Amino acid sequence: MQKKKFKHIGIVGRIDNVQAINSLKQLTHFLDTKHVNIILSETTANALIGHTYQVGSDKILGEISDLIVVVGGDGSLLGAARSFAKYSVPILGINRGRLGFLTDIAPDEIDCKFNNIFHGDYIEDHRFMLACDIKRERDPINKSSALNDIVLHRGKSTRMIEFELHIDGQFVYSQRSDGLIVATSTGSTAYALSAGGPIIHPKLDALVLVPMFPHTLTSRPIVVDGSSDIRIVIGVDNDIYPRISCDGQTHYTASPGDTICIKKLANKVKLIHPKEHDYYEICRRKLGWGSKLGQ
Amino acid sequence: MQKKKFKHIGIVGRIDNVQAINSLKQLTHFLDTKHVNIILSETTANALIGHTYQVGSDKILGEISDLIVVVGGDGSLLGAARSFAKYSVPILGINRGRLGFLTDIAPDEIDCKFNNIFHGDYIEDHRFMLACDIKRERDPINKSSALNDIVLHRGKSTRMIEFELHIDGQFVYSQRSDGLIVATSTGSTAYALSAGGPIIHPKLDALVLVPMFPHTLTSRPIVVDGSSDIRIVIGVDNDIYPRISCDGQTHYTASPGDTICIKKLANKVKLIHPKEHDYYEICRRKLGWGSKLGQ
Amino acid sequence: MQKKKFKHIGIVGRIDNVQAINSLKQLTHFLDTKHVNIILSETTANALIGHTYQVGSDKILGEISDLIVVVGGDGSLLGAARSFAKYSVPILGINRGRLGFLTDIAPDEIDCKFNNIFHGDYIEDHRFMLACDIKRERDPINKSSALNDIVLHRGKSTRMIEFELHIDGQFVYSQRSDGLIVATSTGSTAYALSAGGPIIHPKLDALVLVPMFPHTLTSRPIVVDGSSDIRIVIGVDNDIYPRISCDGQTHYTASPGDTICIKKLANKVKLIHPKEHDYYEICRRKLGWGSKLGQ
Amino acid sequence: MQKKKFKHIGIVGRIDNVQAINSLKQLTHFLDTKHVNIILSETTANALIGHTYQVGSDKILGEISDLIVVVGGDGSLLGAARSFAKYSVPILGINRGRLGFLTDIAPDEIDCKFNNIFHGDYIEDHRFMLACDIKRERDPINKSSALNDIVLHRGKSTRMIEFELHIDGQFVYSQRSDGLIVATSTGSTAYALSAGGPIIHPKLDALVLVPMFPHTLTSRPIVVDGSSDIRIVIGVDNDIYPRISCDGQTHYTASPGDTICIKKLANKVKLIHPKEHDYYEICRRKLGWGSKLGQ
Repeated sequence: MQKKKFKHIGIVGRIDNVQAINSLKQLTHFLDTKHVNIILSETTANALIGHTYQVGSDKILGEISDLIVVVGGDGSLLGAARSFAKYSVPILGINRGRLGFLTDIAPDEIDCKFNNIFHGDYIEDHRFMLACDIKRERDPINKSSALNDIVLHRGKSTRMIEFELHIDGQFVYSQRSDGLIVATSTGSTAYALSAGGPIIHPKLDALVLVPMFPHTLTSRPIVVDGSSDIRIVIGVDNDIYPRISCDGQTHYTASPGDTICIKKLANKVKLIHPKEHDYYEICRRKLGWGSKLGQ
Repeated sequence: MQKKKFKHIGIVGRIDNVQAINSLKQLTHFLDTKHVNIILSETTANALIGHTYQVGSDKILGEISDLIVVVGGDGSLLGAARSFAKYSVPILGINRGRLGFLTDIAPDEIDCKFNNIFHGDYIEDHRFMLACDIKRERDPINKSSALNDIVLHRGKSTRMIEFELHIDGQFVYSQRSDGLIVATSTGSTAYALSAGGPIIHPKLDALVLVPMFPHTLTSRPIVVDGSSDIRIVIGVDNDIYPRISCDGQTHYTASPGDTICIKKLANKVKLIHPKEHDYYEICRRKLGWGSKLGQ
Repeated sequence: MQKKKFKHIGIVGRIDNVQAINSLKQLTHFLDTKHVNIILSETTANALIGHTYQVGSDKILGEISDLIVVVGGDGSLLGAARSFAKYSVPILGINRGRLGFLTDIAPDEIDCKFNNIFHGDYIEDHRFMLACDIKRERDPINKSSALNDIVLHRGKSTRMIEFELHIDGQFVYSQRSDGLIVATSTGSTAYALSAGGPIIHPKLDALVLVPMFPHTLTSRPIVVDGSSDIRIVIGVDNDIYPRISCDGQTHYTASPGDTICIKKLANKVKLIHPKEHDYYEICRRKLGWGSKLGQ
Repeated sequence: MQKKKFKHIGIVGRIDNVQAINSLKQLTHFLDTKHVNIILSETTANALIGHTYQVGSDKILGEISDLIVVVGGDGSLLGAARSFAKYSVPILGINRGRLGFLTDIAPDEIDCKFNNIFHGDYIEDHRFMLACDIKRERDPINKSSALNDIVLHRGKSTRMIEFELHIDGQFVYSQRSDGLIVATSTGSTAYALSAGGPIIHPKLDALVLVPMFPHTLTSRPIVVDGSSDIRIVIGVDNDIYPRISCDGQTHYTASPGDTICIKKLANKVKLIHPKEHDYYEICRRKLGWGSKLGQ
């Protein structure tokens, strides 16, 4: 694969902590030495007092940039993925949150790793995303997207939700539970993992459906093809109004009888990783797995 | 897909219970009316006293038959899959065990369902299998295959096994546990499910690796591409001789330092199902999942 | 134990479905033949048009009755337990909900089982309950009680709660999760079971603390003495206002920094069961466990 | 409680690694300065070349000693508990294995912690043990005991075992699985935890029964009173000979039809801990649980 030149670099950062802002400054200083065009997102620009860079809306960043750099945690990167996937611009994360699966450059590696990346020493990692359409009597009433997961949950109610699950037009089951997590392979190491789901290697084109505290103890995580058509029908007899959350960041309150339609988004998000990126090494560190024997 | 004519039908049956033998008789009587050529496996022939059918070795059955019919439980079908996959002959199961995922014709449906199948009303369902090669200092010392799962377990010892897992040449983790289950999507509803693995739809080309009672509580089932190259290295410092079991039916005792190499078998097994076959319906029945709401 | 005579019988019923009201009528007709004094709860009285029975508040029912009969599901009985435990009056449940652990008389058994109970053929089963006190800077701000469980959960937020757990004055852990279930042995077969908790025999004086989707995968259910002093401190840095729910029926919204103090309630609830009551038999029926071998 | 003087100290050590032997030497040197009588177990004596201490059988150690010191891992202490519980002699562990729940003095703390212990600054922690009696047609055929757990498992077979479970004379269920773990509260953090059981605080007088890979997915860990009478009947129709293991250290091969009777042993084991001993702190370290917030 012919590596791209990165000339126009959009920057999106967490601005709610000093460390992230320091990393933003370090990043822009470094990029200045590379004579690239920097475009700050509007909120990011507010945190960099006295800067002279171009500032743009998400639309402008998406259309102009060859690369979007996110300074923050996995949450920041999830937000960027949902905003910029449609522009096909690659995204790279500098980690300023907890140890993450998505943002894999440490703040003290900025200069070194970016030098390599500018030399073309990087991995491009395409991850599929999900589109979520909520329908009421066949009329679309809400659209959203997710890189990690779409979660149907009971919201502030403590009553169980009753719903039907259909996959590719086939009825799977009806269930009474706290909800259902529909996670991509990318999201399998996030919320779905806490809920008892398996780890799905990101190269596998698959979804996992993880029931949340199901009343029937035999309900188990189900892994299906990533291109599956998922349809969740909220039972008309529920007396609660469940919530649908995308990546834990955007929320919608649905009604009994609504249908949640989930399928793969046409556009993938392109993540840029340093060449050394090693998925299982991240798993070992985050999950405390054992290292090689005899060492 | 142009449906095949079934003219030469190989029959393999459990002969350890009367019900299975009765179903064998019913099947041969029915097939007689269809003027097909029946070939009995050698052990099956012993149970049908006074018959006049052709009798053949597995090799003969595999080479001559257009269809192999298995009368028994899922276990019988697993054995047939391992024996006949290399001949590309389709296999159909008549259930004479517990409710199964693989043998989906009930004994009292033989005439009706077979009539439909002879009319071409059937589904051909290709399932991949796994090859297991055990190596000692790079020399192959044992070869076997499995449709459901390959299980590394501690055998009669009560000590944990220590081993390394590598996938596609990448080191994943070292682990101390009772063992590891490597299951196909087909096997995901068998032993791997009892061990906490997810259900994988058989259409998904994926494997699941399920740790057995891992000492590290963060070890979780991992789902990877079905074409992955799995390598399990038994730590040289183990003082136990673990066992490797294929489909719970063939066994081998390995030594510390041995490597277990698992990858997809070139040949798939072709299962024949009645047209009405519904994977999720079998799940609902076997696992007691909820049926449609408002019914 | 000298069995009591039941002369004054309080009746509490679900009045939101016709079947429950029919059972209420059948019950009162039967009790009329026994010449006992019937006292209806106020809401129950509304459903029995034209009756001539005494009607009373919960306070009156609690003080006068020798026995409270609940017609409804486990939920109705939980409510009655919280209302009447302080009066030391025994409670008996007629099941008009889903198959329950607490209400064990079927509607068609009313006459027969009550006859036995009036003859003294019954089991008195004492179950402890929990008191929940929420404190803000040491001031009590809310009091409630539960027979099944007290649940700290994130309410409608999708952010994790961060909290500390202390048991008997000892620090246990801090945790980021969706919440924590503190269940009695009685409640161990309810919500806590869906969340992965163990089944605790009701005769064991024990509590179980079940983390809800903990971020740290090594957080596991903990079983402690039923008289333990449980203290959950909601981290001051949370930006969500978590909810505390008792038996899923009463709710309170807490603030960051609040402390939830949970300990055994002084009064136990006394459940009356038919003589044949068999805890494990209910488990087998509800959970589909295997029956005796060779049968 | 009046603290005992420790004048006669029995020593039992792992002799299969140099570190353990070094700790043995350090311990005996320290004890020499305290003018106590040292009695080495026979195998331990072999590892201390040239020593002049008294050497004794387990019987002598048990009868003479005021304190048994175990140098090794949790496994060594389990063995000592089974050997010495009947002599009512307290046991203290110096950890020379992996981080353990039972051996809580680190090798570099020997002098300091023992000084404190000799001054009476210690905690005496009584843990109950289990007796295991295997019966064939009512005749006892094997007796053993355990501090952690008694495990029925399939041994080297890969077939499931079918058995019935009875508790206090009540039938609980029949199950097809790889086996059943019966663990004390002490053992709840050992093998039973890997198998999905809850953590039971050692002060709680309780047992947990954890099914191993049960075929029925609704089989769950059950927690019962520590004085319960457990009876496991191995189904007569099994064609395997399952193993019963106590603390993973003593083993017996049972036959179809045999009954395994498990109940609390009359004698408790008395563990001696340094005053600072903190159960939850050990859990946090071993399981990576979160420390106090704001720290």
